[in-house]
Amino acid sequence: MDFSVFSDEHYMKLAYKEAVKAAEKGEIPVGAVVVCGQKIVAKAHNETETLQDVTAHAEILAITAASNYLGAKYLTECTLFVTLEPCLMCAGAIAWSQLKRLVFAAHDPAKGFTKWQTGDNHILHLKTELSTGLMAGPCKLLIEDFFRDMRN
Amino acid sequence: MDFSVFSDEHYMKLAYKEAVKAAEKGEIPVGAVVVCGQKIVAKAHNETETLQDVTAHAEILAITAASNYLGAKYLTECTLFVTLEPCLMCAGAIAWSQLKRLVFAAHDPAKGFTKWQTGDNHILHLKTELSTGLMAGPCKLLIEDFFRDMRN
Repeated sequence: MDFSVFSDEHYMKLAYKEAVKAAEKGEIPVGAVVVCGQKIVAKAHNETETLQDVTAHAEILAITAASNYLGAKYLTECTLFVTLEPCLMCAGAIAWSQLKRLVFAAHDPAKGFTKWQTGDNHILHLKTELSTGLMAGPCKLLIEDFFRDMRN
Repeated sequence: MDFSVFSDEHYMKLAYKEAVKAAEKGEIPVGAVVVCGQKIVAKAHNETETLQDVTAHAEILAITAASNYLGAKYLTECTLFVTLEPCLMCAGAIAWSQLKRLVFAAHDPAKGFTKWQTGDNHILHLKTELSTGLMAGPCKLLIEDFFRDMRN
């Protein structure tokens, strides 16, 4: 595995740090980073409680911020790193963005988009590469710890 | 049919007017209105080109605006009127919002969310009522005219 600052793991660690920021604000801890070439063009975390807006998932905020930074609607040269499998809303946004590559850490069996994906009805853009499972353990644990603390 | 100012048709006409505003700006003409009780709490139209942001669909902007107006994350007392069947991204947002009722005009066989909906994998919130087809003709025509003008 490539442990350089340009490795997938490096960027996922930054997404993880974003997720920790979310937890510290009482938000479900999900973080996202958008990388274009080797440059980070957006970092975001879930802010649905802070903004009282269900659309303020880390991925939506990151896509909007990346487009704003790049002045471009399509993110065909970008990779999105996110700590949790995107929901349908976020997968839909990722599809519209024509993202080059999506890397998500933990699977979300309840709300993750892959539940809806069938052979004929592709959800992501056909050109978007998908990698899953990187740092899935710590990213999942962060969410489990958050909900355990909420219950106590 | 109830033709009062509080009828579905009245609100869909306002959504249609929003769609016309989009067309005038060179945006694919889709408009949305959110109504809470009998009060209009948000109006929006597609602004993906203006904002260079694929997430700036009429429904996403309307949900964010309605939540902002109401100071509430969940729109359990609201109805969203939209001139075109929502895409997966917007349907996902509508699901998260726990919207009381969704009324869309024209079907979108290519990108509409119902293509992905199966008996076991419900996309909208289970409590969200769905009405379709109201003013479908003019809302569809507006989009067809837009694309014909784009080609010419």
